[in-house]
Amino acid sequence: MGIDHLIERIREKKTPIAVGLDPRLDMVPSFLLDNAVAQKGETLEAAADAVYAFNYGILEATHDLVPCVKLQSACYEALGYHGVRVFEETCKLAREHGLYVIADAKRGDIGSTSELYSAAFLGRVKVGQSEFAPVDADALTVNPYLGSDNVKPFLADCEAYDKAIFVLVRTSNKSSRELQLLMTPDRPLFHAVAELCRLWGKPLIGSYGYSSVGFVVGATHPREMAELRALWPEAFFLVPGYGAQGADARDCSHAFDELGRGAIINSSRAILHAWGKANEPDRFKEAARAEVLNMREALSRHINCL
Amino acid sequence: MGIDHLIERIREKKTPIAVGLDPRLDMVPSFLLDNAVAQKGETLEAAADAVYAFNYGILEATHDLVPCVKLQSACYEALGYHGVRVFEETCKLAREHGLYVIADAKRGDIGSTSELYSAAFLGRVKVGQSEFAPVDADALTVNPYLGSDNVKPFLADCEAYDKAIFVLVRTSNKSSRELQLLMTPDRPLFHAVAELCRLWGKPLIGSYGYSSVGFVVGATHPREMAELRALWPEAFFLVPGYGAQGADARDCSHAFDELGRGAIINSSRAILHAWGKANEPDRFKEAARAEVLNMREALSRHINCL
Repeated sequence: MGIDHLIERIREKKTPIAVGLDPRLDMVPSFLLDNAVAQKGETLEAAADAVYAFNYGILEATHDLVPCVKLQSACYEALGYHGVRVFEETCKLAREHGLYVIADAKRGDIGSTSELYSAAFLGRVKVGQSEFAPVDADALTVNPYLGSDNVKPFLADCEAYDKAIFVLVRTSNKSSRELQLLMTPDRPLFHAVAELCRLWGKPLIGSYGYSSVGFVVGATHPREMAELRALWPEAFFLVPGYGAQGADARDCSHAFDELGRGAIINSSRAILHAWGKANEPDRFKEAARAEVLNMREALSRHINCL
Repeated sequence: MGIDHLIERIREKKTPIAVGLDPRLDMVPSFLLDNAVAQKGETLEAAADAVYAFNYGILEATHDLVPCVKLQSACYEALGYHGVRVFEETCKLAREHGLYVIADAKRGDIGSTSELYSAAFLGRVKVGQSEFAPVDADALTVNPYLGSDNVKPFLADCEAYDKAIFVLVRTSNKSSRELQLLMTPDRPLFHAVAELCRLWGKPLIGSYGYSSVGFVVGATHPREMAELRALWPEAFFLVPGYGAQGADARDCSHAFDELGRGAIINSSRAILHAWGKANEPDRFKEAARAEVLNMREALSRHINCL
């Protein structure tokens, strides 16, 4: 099962950290952009090349410490199709480093359209007799608003290619309460979403008791996270919100089971922009590595038995 | 206001049709793929080039009849970054034909991420001193599950660049009922979404009384569509579900106000794959044009005063 690969990599690296490869241009040291602009002018192509060089350095500096990377698609799409090229290239590079790759694209559409999104991110696309896997991520984040039609094509690819999805259940942002906490007759909306995930994920439970249909649950809602953990023990959590969004290691601890399993904690800005603290852009790799070590230490104080 | 541009184009062309440029490879006449493969082999690049040639022909054959095109992003993303290149190129070509361009990408994320999606699809991206508009669509479809944080960056670009968004309120697919029809204390969830849209769209009401925050409402739910039309008179509807998904012109008529305004009806497969009816791939342009004329005729029988 797809989720087992993530759990095994977390066990190997002894920490549940995902490096969030969400490179906004203002986090990329300017010498990298200057190099790229020298070759290709002030273009989106140059910006995308600079982002790739940055990701290359971050992966070089952190891949031996962490099990996983999460790429926020928006950061790449903002650079047009060259950005999407670099998204694909970064996924490939991360896989070559042995990392579990989560594509954070939050896709959701009617079934026949989701088939195409699933083919793009998790599955295969046929051209004549040849097959291609444009992104070939290990997992994709998915938006639940359209219901089961949307999710089924992803489930089929999870099964066929040993992949996973993380469905948005309780997102880390403030206004998530506007809809996600609305009371439906018997429970808040995000519980209704979680219950749908249980059904979707039932046939995809792996050897550790976790399903390849996981939840996105913001660490910014620790109480609700603990509740979800108790009620949906088979759900693996992808947890955003650590660091820049305000949640700490103690908040994240509610995502884990008594064996210290059950979640992967993402940190993006704190790692990518660690060089900003002492304004040492030429030491961005060392700064990122130091920040990952800090985060590992902080998490280990609050999570049992890693 | 962004939505006024759509309304004006509908008035000029005297029909509320959006051609859905959602080219799956199985709808693209094989001679176009063969041509591309002859040049670039069986690659995603060749597939993307074939899609562009197809879109070029469809636009050539239909641009004088319709006010608008809608591009389903998934069809392009499935071809990797070359597909995204063709997405951008098709948007540009459609604009050159004077058409209103809706990017159907259903994006939704936390605010700082939505800024990037908004920059990609509606706004601008800065590289050094230069500014780029990667897609520069006139409107984007947006998923509401994350609430106001998600939507605000799009609203800012609607204001700055005269654009519009269409928020998923009641989608055309069958399983949309699983969440969208859940009862919250005082109304079904999709009404709660519509009410949020009213707030978001209030500062963006244009000269025809319609807001640049519109709704996606499937023609497959005519009763609920009529209800939404009555309760949210300022909401312009983007209506999928016509034709292949089972809704007809009569179903769509509920989307319009008494002046025959208030909605744009999308048709994709029926137009793009019109050549399949008589299996005449070399006449795909003529077939698409004939289908648009049919649809125009069918709509005019049920919608007043276009």
